[in-house]
Amino acid sequence: MRILWLIVALTASVPALGDEGMWTFDNFPSSTVQSTYGAQVTPAWLEHVRLSTLRLSNCTASFVSPDGLILTNHHCVESCLAELSSKDNSLLDRGFRAENRNAERRCSTQLADVLVAMDDVTAPVAKAIGGLDDKAANDARKKVLTQLEQSCEQASAKLKSGKLKCQAVTLYEGGQYFIYKYKRYDDVRLVFAPEADMAAFGGDPDNFQFPRWSLDFSMLRAYEHGKPAKTPNHLRINFAGPQADELVFVSGHPGTTQRLETRSQLEFERDMSLPNSLLRTAELRGRYIQFGRASPANEQLVEAPLDSLENGLKVRRKLLDALHDDALMTRKGAEEAALRANARFAGADPWAEIEAASMRERGLYLPYTFIEGAAGFNSILFRYARLLVRGADERAKPNTERLREFTDTALPRLEQQLYAHVPIYAEVEALTLSFSLQRMREWLGPDHPLVRQLLAQDSPDSLAARLVAETTLDDAAVRRQLWEGGKAAVAASQDPMIELARTVDGDSRALRKRFDDEVEAPISAASEKIAAGRFSAYGTHVYPDATFTLRLNYGTVQGWMENGTAVAPFTYLDRAFERATGTSPFKIPDSWMKVKSQLDMRTPFCIATNNDIVGGNSGSPLIDAQGRIVGLMFDGNIHSISGDYWFDTAKNRSVALHPAIIREALDKVYDAKSLLAELSAQ
Amino acid sequence: MRILWLIVALTASVPALGDEGMWTFDNFPSSTVQSTYGAQVTPAWLEHVRLSTLRLSNCTASFVSPDGLILTNHHCVESCLAELSSKDNSLLDRGFRAENRNAERRCSTQLADVLVAMDDVTAPVAKAIGGLDDKAANDARKKVLTQLEQSCEQASAKLKSGKLKCQAVTLYEGGQYFIYKYKRYDDVRLVFAPEADMAAFGGDPDNFQFPRWSLDFSMLRAYEHGKPAKTPNHLRINFAGPQADELVFVSGHPGTTQRLETRSQLEFERDMSLPNSLLRTAELRGRYIQFGRASPANEQLVEAPLDSLENGLKVRRKLLDALHDDALMTRKGAEEAALRANARFAGADPWAEIEAASMRERGLYLPYTFIEGAAGFNSILFRYARLLVRGADERAKPNTERLREFTDTALPRLEQQLYAHVPIYAEVEALTLSFSLQRMREWLGPDHPLVRQLLAQDSPDSLAARLVAETTLDDAAVRRQLWEGGKAAVAASQDPMIELARTVDGDSRALRKRFDDEVEAPISAASEKIAAGRFSAYGTHVYPDATFTLRLNYGTVQGWMENGTAVAPFTYLDRAFERATGTSPFKIPDSWMKVKSQLDMRTPFCIATNNDIVGGNSGSPLIDAQGRIVGLMFDGNIHSISGDYWFDTAKNRSVALHPAIIREALDKVYDAKSLLAELSAQ
Repeated sequence: MRILWLIVALTASVPALGDEGMWTFDNFPSSTVQSTYGAQVTPAWLEHVRLSTLRLSNCTASFVSPDGLILTNHHCVESCLAELSSKDNSLLDRGFRAENRNAERRCSTQLADVLVAMDDVTAPVAKAIGGLDDKAANDARKKVLTQLEQSCEQASAKLKSGKLKCQAVTLYEGGQYFIYKYKRYDDVRLVFAPEADMAAFGGDPDNFQFPRWSLDFSMLRAYEHGKPAKTPNHLRINFAGPQADELVFVSGHPGTTQRLETRSQLEFERDMSLPNSLLRTAELRGRYIQFGRASPANEQLVEAPLDSLENGLKVRRKLLDALHDDALMTRKGAEEAALRANARFAGADPWAEIEAASMRERGLYLPYTFIEGAAGFNSILFRYARLLVRGADERAKPNTERLREFTDTALPRLEQQLYAHVPIYAEVEALTLSFSLQRMREWLGPDHPLVRQLLAQDSPDSLAARLVAETTLDDAAVRRQLWEGGKAAVAASQDPMIELARTVDGDSRALRKRFDDEVEAPISAASEKIAAGRFSAYGTHVYPDATFTLRLNYGTVQGWMENGTAVAPFTYLDRAFERATGTSPFKIPDSWMKVKSQLDMRTPFCIATNNDIVGGNSGSPLIDAQGRIVGLMFDGNIHSISGDYWFDTAKNRSVALHPAIIREALDKVYDAKSLLAELSAQ
Repeated sequence: MRILWLIVALTASVPALGDEGMWTFDNFPSSTVQSTYGAQVTPAWLEHVRLSTLRLSNCTASFVSPDGLILTNHHCVESCLAELSSKDNSLLDRGFRAENRNAERRCSTQLADVLVAMDDVTAPVAKAIGGLDDKAANDARKKVLTQLEQSCEQASAKLKSGKLKCQAVTLYEGGQYFIYKYKRYDDVRLVFAPEADMAAFGGDPDNFQFPRWSLDFSMLRAYEHGKPAKTPNHLRINFAGPQADELVFVSGHPGTTQRLETRSQLEFERDMSLPNSLLRTAELRGRYIQFGRASPANEQLVEAPLDSLENGLKVRRKLLDALHDDALMTRKGAEEAALRANARFAGADPWAEIEAASMRERGLYLPYTFIEGAAGFNSILFRYARLLVRGADERAKPNTERLREFTDTALPRLEQQLYAHVPIYAEVEALTLSFSLQRMREWLGPDHPLVRQLLAQDSPDSLAARLVAETTLDDAAVRRQLWEGGKAAVAASQDPMIELARTVDGDSRALRKRFDDEVEAPISAASEKIAAGRFSAYGTHVYPDATFTLRLNYGTVQGWMENGTAVAPFTYLDRAFERATGTSPFKIPDSWMKVKSQLDMRTPFCIATNNDIVGGNSGSPLIDAQGRIVGLMFDGNIHSISGDYWFDTAKNRSVALHPAIIREALDKVYDAKSLLAELSAQ
C-alpha cells in the first residue's frame, strides 16, 4: 500500500509529468529512462558526460576535442568579445577566427569548471544549526558552509591530481547541502566566433522564438601551464544530428528556478520585484538605444549590454505574465495542500512563516534594492569600488566571519575580475550611473537621508559625470594596488568612487543585516521544514530547483501545437535567406552572401526538443544515447520562460543549434578547415 | 426600518466615508454639508460656481475677473507654451507675461467650455435599446446619443443666447445618461506663465508629493468676437487663503475613476493594461532623456512631452501598486456581495458577463493597443494622417452612422486641432515613431502579417525616418486642404504618412469592431444591469465615477499622518529656498533670486486638503463657503493616486497653490501690477 499511496501523492502534487526534471547526476532516474525509452544510462556514461561538461561564468560548455577545445554559444562569449574589442574594432560585429593556436586570445574574466565530485554534507549542517533560533541558525549555517569549503580545499591541495575548487550547494531549498568539487581552468582562450549579425540573426524580436535561424555558437580552448589542456573526457559530434522523436539529453547548469517556492514568495515576485526591475530595465533600454543612435561608434559601445538587457527584459516580462496566470497560483495551492496532507510539520506552519517574512521583504525591498542591491549605483566602476572597500574590511576578518562572497574560496574569482584589463567606456558608465541615481531619487524620494546626502549640491548627471571623470579605477593596476594594499590603502584612497562606496557602505550593510535576519533567516528555516516534509512524503522522486549546478535531463526531439498549428522541430538554411531584410537584426552578413550559391540550402539549422532547460543551460551539449553531441542548446521557445515556475509539458520547448549548420559554416563560410578537422577527427 | 436598512447597506458596501464624493451639481448633498459643517450651499451658490468654472482640453479653470480672465495651472498650458515656442525661444523655460491685452497670444488648440444646463436622457436611451441583444444595443446606444446631441445643438442654434455644444454623458457606468450643454469659448489667449523651473519646482521627484513648493499657476483670457469676453459669473480671490480645518469645495472636472468597476475589470488593468503601458512609457522616458542630453536644444524639444510622460508613469506605477493591495480586491468582493444581497438581478449575473468579456479583452489587447490604439504609431503626424483618412470616410456617412468621435458635435474640435499651426519637431517624431514600430514588432512578433508588411524591407528606424522626412502633414495648410478636399483628396494623396494610415485602416477598424462587439457591448449591457441594481438599493446616495464632467466636492484643509509623523497642511516660501540645489528640477530661477531679499519668506505656498480629486481637476478653484477662491488645485499626495479605485479617507490629500504666493509672485517677482489689480479689483 505504501507504494501505491506514494504514486497517488506524486500524481496529485508533484509536477513530474512527461520528461520534465533537472536531475542531479547522483540521482538521475536511469530506470525511468530505461523503461520509457529502452536506453541504458550507465554510471560510466554519466561520468563521461559529467567530466566533459564545463561551467563557464554564466553558461555551460563542453569539451569537444582531446586538446581542450570547447564548444559553447556565441552569446556566452559576448563579454570576452567585448573585452578583446576596442572602440575601433568590434569583435562582436566582425567575428573572430584564430589562424592557428598561437593566435587564440585569452578571455581574462573567463573560468571553466568541471565537476569532479559531490559530497553530501546535510548532516554536519543540521548539526551546526541544531537548537538555534532562526537568526542564529542563519549565521551558523553560513559559517559551517564556509568551514566545509575551506577544509575541502585544504584537503585537495594535498592531492596529486591538484587543488580543487570547493563550493557549497543548497538543494531542495535547504533539504540537502552538498560540497561540489571542481577542477578549474583559469586560462581560457577565444578560438572562433561568427559575426553577431549571424550568431544573433533575428535579434531581440526572435529571441525566445522558434522557428529560429541564429548561428549561436563559438569556440574556446582551455589551457594549462600555457599549453592546450589535455582533455581525454570530451564529447564527439554527430554532424548528422538527431531524428524527430529521438531520445536526447542535456547536460548543463540551469541557473535558477523557483518551482519549489511557496505562493507568497511568487506573489512577492509578481507584485514587487518583477514590476520594479522591469520598469528600470525598460527605461535603461531606451537610454541605450538612443545613445547608440548618436553614432555607429556609440551603437557598438552599447551593443553587448543592450543584448543582455533585452534578454533579461523579455524573460522578466514573460515571468510576470506567467505569475498573472491564476492557474499557476491555484496549482501552488494544490501542491501545498497535498504536502500538508502527506507530511507532518509538528505543529509548525512553515508556509505562514514564509508569508510573514515575505511581507517584511516588501517593506525592505526598495532601499535594499537601490542601496545594497546597488540598483542606485549602476556602474562597473562602482562595483569595483564596493569590492575594494568591502573586500578590504572582510579580508581582515577570519574566513568564517566574512560575508560569504568574500571567503577564501570566492577570492580567486574576485581577484580575476578585479585584475582583468577590460575596456570601460566612460560615456556608458556616466549614462548608467546617472540613470540609476535618478531612479534612486525617484523611488526612495528626494528627502531620503542618503539621497539628500549624495545629491545635496549635485544633479544625478553632474555627480555621475564627475565620479566617472575623476576616478582612476578603470585602470587595472590601480585596482590591484588597492586590493593588495588592503584596509590601509583603501582607507587612504581619495578616489571619488571609493569615497562613494565608503559613504554608502554603513547604510548598505545595515540593510543587508536586516534582510538577512528578518527575511532570509526565517525563510531558510521554514524552507528546510518544508523540504524535510517533502522528503518524508516523496523521497527524492522530486528534483531540486536549479542552482547553477550540474544537472542532466532527458527528452525527445519534438515540436508543439501553437494555436492549433503544428510547429515542426527542425528549421533549414533557406528560410533564413528568405527572412532577411538587409538590416540588423535581420541582416545576413557579407561572408554568407558571398558564398550563398555554394551553400546547401537544405542544411538543418535549429532543433526544438522538450528538454527542461532554463538560463544557464546556454551552451549545453544536446547528447544522444550514444553520448555524442547532436545539438547545442542556446534558447527556449516563448513558453519555456515560465519554466522558472513550472514545466509546461505541452508547450515548453528548448532550442538547439543543429551540428550540420556548424559544419556548413566552418567549411564553406569561414574556411576553418583545421578546426573542423579537430572536431571531426575523433 | 427601510431607512435603517439603507444606512446599514451603505456602510457595508458604499465607500461613502468622510468627505468623499465627486458629486454632480444636480445631486450635491447640501443637507449633509449643512448638518456636518453648518454651511448653506444654496442653489444660487451652486449656479454661480458652476457658471464660473471652465473645462479646458484636459484640465479645469475658472473665471477670475469680469473681463474673461482665467486662472488655471501652469501644467495645463504647457501645450500652449510649446505651440508658441520655437527651437530658439522656449516659453516653457522663460515664462510669459503679456505687457498689455494686445500682447496676449492665442492658444490655437485651446477651448474653454462652461456647463450651462444638464438634461436627463436616461429614458430615451433605454427606449432605443429596449429588447435588443448586447451587440445591437451597443450600436443603438451610440446612435441615439448622437441623435440627442444633434437635436440639442440644432435646437440651441435658434436661441438668442447663442449656439451651444451638446455632449452625451454616461454616468454610473450606464445607470444614467445626460446631455450636457456648454457655452464654448474657442478664442483663448495666454496672459501669464512663470518659468517652468518655478512652476514645476521639484519636477518629477516632487510630483504627487506634499509638502510642496511648485508655483503651478498661469493665466489665460477668453475672447469673443476678438474682444475680452464679458464674464459676470466669476470668482473672487481671497488672498488670505483658508484656515486649517476650514470647510472648502472643489469645482472641477475629474477625468476618470474606476470606483464602480468590477473586480475582473480591475484585474484586467492589473495584469494587462498597466504593466504593458508602463513598460512602453518607461522605455520612451529613457529615449527622451537620452535624446535631451545631446544638447540644450534637444532637451528643450522633449521637455513638455517628457513632463507629461513622467506624470503618467508615476500615476500608473502607483495605480499598479494600489491594485496589488489585496485589501482593494477584498473590498470589491464585499461591495459586490452586498449589492447582490440588496438588489435583484432577475437571474442575470452581470459580474460573470463582465468577467467573460474581460477575458476576451485580454486576447484582443495587444493587437488592439498597437494597431487601433496606435501604440505602434506613436507620432503626431500619424495621428493627423489617421484623422484625415478616417475623417474623410466617416464624414461621407450620415451623422448617426459615424464613429462617435466623428459626429457633427465632435468635428469643430477636430478641425481646430488639424488647422492649428503647431510646431512639429522631426527629430522627436522620428524618435517616437521608430520606438513604437520597434515595440509593435516586439509585442506582435516579426511574423505578424501587418508587421511583416510594414517592415519587409525596412527597419523601424529607416521606415520612421523616411515617413517623417517625406510627409508634408506638418504643414497646417496641407492638412486643411486634405480635410476640406474630403474623400477624393485623401484618396489621391501620395503622402507617405497618409499611405501608412490607409494601409493600416482596414485591420484597425476590424479590431475595433471586434472590440466593440465582443468586449464593449457586453460590458455596457452588464454595467447597466449593475447600475440599475445599485439605484434600486441605494438611490443616488452614491456618486458616479468621474467622466471629465463637472463635479463638486467638499472637504477641509488638513494634513495627514505619514508613518506616525503628522504632515502639516501648509508650506511656506522659505523652505523652497532651503531645498534649492541650483540644478533643475530644484533650481529657483534668477527672477526670484534677484528679489529674494524683498520677499516675505513666511508667505504660505501650498495647502493640503482632503478634497476628493483626480487628474482633470488640475486648475480647479478651491472655494470657501462664501464662494471665494482660497486655493488652486494642482496635484494630490502620493496616496491620492489610488483615488482611481477608492478614496482613502486617512491619507488621500489634494494639493493646492495658496493665493498668497500668487500675489507675492505677481507683485514682487513678475511686476505684473495691472494683472494683480484686475484680480483684486472686484
